[in-house]
This record gives sequence, C-alpha cells and structure tokens, in this order.
Amino acid sequence: MKCKKCGGQAVIHLRAHNLALCKDHFVEFFEKRVQKGIGRFKMFDRKSKILVAVSTGKDSSAVLYALKKLGYKVEGLFLKMGPHTNLAERVVKNIENATGVKINIFDVTRDFGGLGTADVARIVKRPVCSICGIVRRHWMNRYAYENGFDVLVTGHNMDDEATFLFGNILNWQVDYMARQWPVLEKTHPKFVRKAKPLIYVTERETYAYVFLNGIPFLEQKCPFAQGATSSHYKKYLNALEWEQPGVKHRLLFGYFETLKPLLASETKVELRECNVCGFPTTEEKCQYCKLVERVHDHITKNSAGEKGIDVQISEDTGE
Amino acid sequence: MKCKKCGGQAVIHLRAHNLALCKDHFVEFFEKRVQKGIGRFKMFDRKSKILVAVSTGKDSSAVLYALKKLGYKVEGLFLKMGPHTNLAERVVKNIENATGVKINIFDVTRDFGGLGTADVARIVKRPVCSICGIVRRHWMNRYAYENGFDVLVTGHNMDDEATFLFGNILNWQVDYMARQWPVLEKTHPKFVRKAKPLIYVTERETYAYVFLNGIPFLEQKCPFAQGATSSHYKKYLNALEWEQPGVKHRLLFGYFETLKPLLASETKVELRECNVCGFPTTEEKCQYCKLVERVHDHITKNSAGEKGIDVQISEDTGE
Repeated sequence: MKCKKCGGQAVIHLRAHNLALCKDHFVEFFEKRVQKGIGRFKMFDRKSKILVAVSTGKDSSAVLYALKKLGYKVEGLFLKMGPHTNLAERVVKNIENATGVKINIFDVTRDFGGLGTADVARIVKRPVCSICGIVRRHWMNRYAYENGFDVLVTGHNMDDEATFLFGNILNWQVDYMARQWPVLEKTHPKFVRKAKPLIYVTERETYAYVFLNGIPFLEQKCPFAQGATSSHYKKYLNALEWEQPGVKHRLLFGYFETLKPLLASETKVELRECNVCGFPTTEEKCQYCKLVERVHDHITKNSAGEKGIDVQISEDTGE
Repeated sequence: MKCKKCGGQAVIHLRAHNLALCKDHFVEFFEKRVQKGIGRFKMFDRKSKILVAVSTGKDSSAVLYALKKLGYKVEGLFLKMGPHTNLAERVVKNIENATGVKINIFDVTRDFGGLGTADVARIVKRPVCSICGIVRRHWMNRYAYENGFDVLVTGHNMDDEATFLFGNILNWQVDYMARQWPVLEKTHPKFVRKAKPLIYVTERETYAYVFLNGIPFLEQKCPFAQGATSSHYKKYLNALEWEQPGVKHRLLFGYFETLKPLLASETKVELRECNVCGFPTTEEKCQYCKLVERVHDHITKNSAGEKGIDVQISEDTGE
C-alpha cells in the first residue's frame, strides 16, 4: 500500500476518503482536518486563550498536541476526581513533556470533604457518570472563567458526535439535538464558549495520530463507563460505516447543514445566577451546589452520631 | 407463557409491549393497532372506496383481511409485471378465497409489447427495482383513479417505515423525509390519496397475523430485491430493537410528532399533466410515458433490422 501523495510506504488507509497515506502525510492530513473544523465553525483564532479539558485519554492528548503545533495559545486542565483518577494523574506529566503544553491540575474533592465522585455518587444514590458530569461541567467552565480563558476545548471526535446524534435521533431527544454543535456560544457572561476541534477526525484517525507522534495517553477507559448505552450505538454506527464508508460524516454534517437550523429556535432556557456559587443555572441553586450541600449534610450527620463515614475509598491501580 | 388478557396459552410475546397473548387476543390486539393507525392519521372511513395494492406478500394479505374484517369497503389490485410475477399471480385466487376480497388483475406488459419489467430494465439499462417502481406508481394510482377509488392502500408496516426513515436520516435525504407520512393527501386532482394502515404493527406481528389466520401469501421475496441497501438498515434496526425494545416505534413516531412538522413546508413541487397520458408529473412527459416510448423505439428498431428482440423471457417458477 503506497502513500497517494508521495508514493512512500503508507501506514494507514482511510476508507471514507479512499486514501492511503504515509506517516508524514497522514499527520499533515489530520492537522488540516483539525484546522478545517476550527475555521469552518469559527471556533477561535491565534489570539484566543484556550483551555483544553484533559482526561489523559487519546482525544485530549491529540488535541493538545495538534493545537500547540498549529500555533494556538493553549493550556490544559486536569481534574482530580478522587482515587479512580490517580492513575490518570500520573500520565499528566508525560503528556506535558511530550506536547510542551502546561497542564493545570485542580482537585475537586476539596469541595466534598476529600471524597471522590464515586463516593459522592454512593452517598446521593445516583450513577457515578451523572455525578462526574455535574462536577466536570461546573469546574471546567468555572476554572476557565476564573482564569481568563476565552474558549474551553474538549476532545470529542467525529465518532463521539455522530454516536451522540444517532442516539438522540433514535429517541428524538430534540432538546439535546438543538444544543449539539461543534462550537457553543456563551449564553451567559459567566459561561465560557466551548469548542470541539476534532469534529472532522474519526476515533481511528485520532488513535493513529497519537501513536505516530509518540504522544502518551492512558488507554484504559474509565472504570465506571462499562456498558454505557452509547457504546451500543457506536457499535452499530461502526458496522454501518464499514458497509457504507462515510456514513458517519454524512449523518453528522448533513444534520449540521440542513436540519440543525430548523431546530435552533426550538429550545430556549432562562438562565439566572446560583445563590451559592454565582454561576449560571436555571434554578435558585445550581446542581453542583446542591450536590456539595447534600454531601456535607451526610458527613455532618455521620460525624454527629460518632460513626465513621460509610464510604470505602479505594485506589484504582489500573491492574 | 400465559396470555396476559385471559391466562390461556400464549402464542406470541411482544417485547416492545412486554405482553404475551393467546391467538384470539393477539388477533384482537393486531386489529386494534390497525384501527388505531387508521383513526390516528384519519386515513379513511367506512364509506371510502378502498383499493389495496396486492403483491401477494404477507403485508398486503394481512391488510386485505384486516380491513375487510374491520368493515371497510375494499378491493385489491394485482399488477402482472412479466414472467417473474407468474408465480405470485397463482396465489391471488387463494388470497381472494381466504379474505373474501375481490382482487382485480391488470397486465402492465400490454404497454411494452408484451415485455416484462425485467426485460424493460435491460433495454433501458436501469435497475429492475427502479423500472418496477415507475410502473407500479403509475398504474396503482391510475387504476384507482380511473375506477373511482377514494384511497390507495399499501401494506407498508412499522419496520418498513422505520427502515426507510433510518436510511433517509443517515444520509439526510430531506426530500424523502418531508414526504414520509402514514397518509398522503392528494396534491393533484388525478392523484388518489394514499394510506398505510399497518403503520402501528411490526413485520413480525404481521407474519404472526397471517399465519394465525391461515391467510395465504407468497413467502418468496422478489428475485430482484436481493442485497438492497434497505435490508442492511433493517438488520441494524432489528439489532437495536433487540437491545432496546420499542426503539423503532420511538424513532418513527417521535419523528412524526416532533420533527415532521418542521420539514413539512420544506419541499414543494409544481405539478402539471403529462402530454401523453394526462397524469400528474413535474415535466412535459411523465417518467412512465418516456419509458413506454423508449421501449417501443427499441422494438421498432430491432424489427426494422429483421433481428429478434435481444431479450430473454424466462419464467420464475419459484423453485
């Protein structure tokens, strides 16, 4: 298999593009696709102060490296969420060294008496992913806002977005569909705009990009993400893509181009500032502050009864 | 497994409804679902003169039987399309006897010098399914119009419609989406309104209904429909349905309720009457009359050269 650009040894074949490329031309291709997304959806420019949400997975590693290489002003933010993120935290330094991008580390457990999101979830009897979502959304935005960043970037790639859309269509969750866009403008002064520069690259291409550039990342998935419904949708979309190369692209971009404008005016929410933290919410107190309060109530009640906190803190060693 | 209604021996379990039913209660359930579709989408009433497009497959057999039983004024129309429909034609009489519904037979090959659609397709070098579609659409509507029917009914079930929508969404074929509805009003005086009373029943339920009522139908699929893209889509939708019972229903009816109104005003076509046959078309001459002309030109040219017609007519015996 030869590179279509230079005739050299190809390292990857892209079925949707009917294109085989060598290492150098694939890296060039990938970065052009990232730049295309940034430009097409007017995500940010080279003066923007960009904060990347770092999970230490392949996507955030790829986006840090690509944005830095493309000349953008970028920093990362890694959130310590409790013992299950200890393994990921150890990779942060390696990613910093490989990408040359400063990655800030912020410990969210300080708001929960030192407890991690898994323990918080057990206390409030809700799924870990839902708690983790509330905490991440709050702190990613708040950290970016309080530290003067213009844009918060996440590593969602084309597969993530196509899968999300696929699931929302199958169940016609029009609210979610109306808010799905590669860039989300501020709807409140305390919301930082959000952007997804990997919108034009697939999961497989992102894997190839980090491998070929020797950028470190944690391959292990989050231990709490097992069996998520989205992984079913991804499976079927991948099978469809195999039979009809390009179907993910057509699904996602056909939607953005033709249907999204029709939905745009459908959902509008009234925002106010949370009584406690001052960040935007639809209610008097935001979901995050309600969560903090419930956990503190629980801790106080348990201390008063002279019992220990009924949670087990265990470290995920990744073994 | 016991019937949820009467405690008798159940013959079918419907996962999407979490419901097991005996033969009698399943038949009642099925007919209620057909009536629900007719009522919900205001398809027709008991005064309407209804023509059912009969292929002799399970769907048209089910709809003939159910409509007759529900007290509607109904007749069938079977189109002879050439040698490949000879087998199906032999089943027509059996279906008439079992359902008590008169089925008219009309031979479309008379317009093509006796040639069937498979030979026509070879002459004009186009896929058989596309030719068959042009011929069916023309004659089903024309026969219904010329014989004073109020509604033309087809046997499309929930799976057919969900599959069609699924494929159109994946490729955002908004034109097709805007025209997909369980009942299509007349957009021209010479168009008969069209309705799909099986919209609330699945393929599996339709199979069960014809089996349990002993209604004859031809199990063999059309020999030209092998490997159609729609069968891929059906495969994935069935797999999704297995993991998330009810997903087809949510996809289809969520679409009708929430999204369809947004698309309704999107596509509008200007109709005029065909110079040759007088039936509605967007051009001077309709697709059907163009096809007839091309085939007659071909026959004339070949006869002039004293050569035989270069087509092979073979009968499908179904073996």
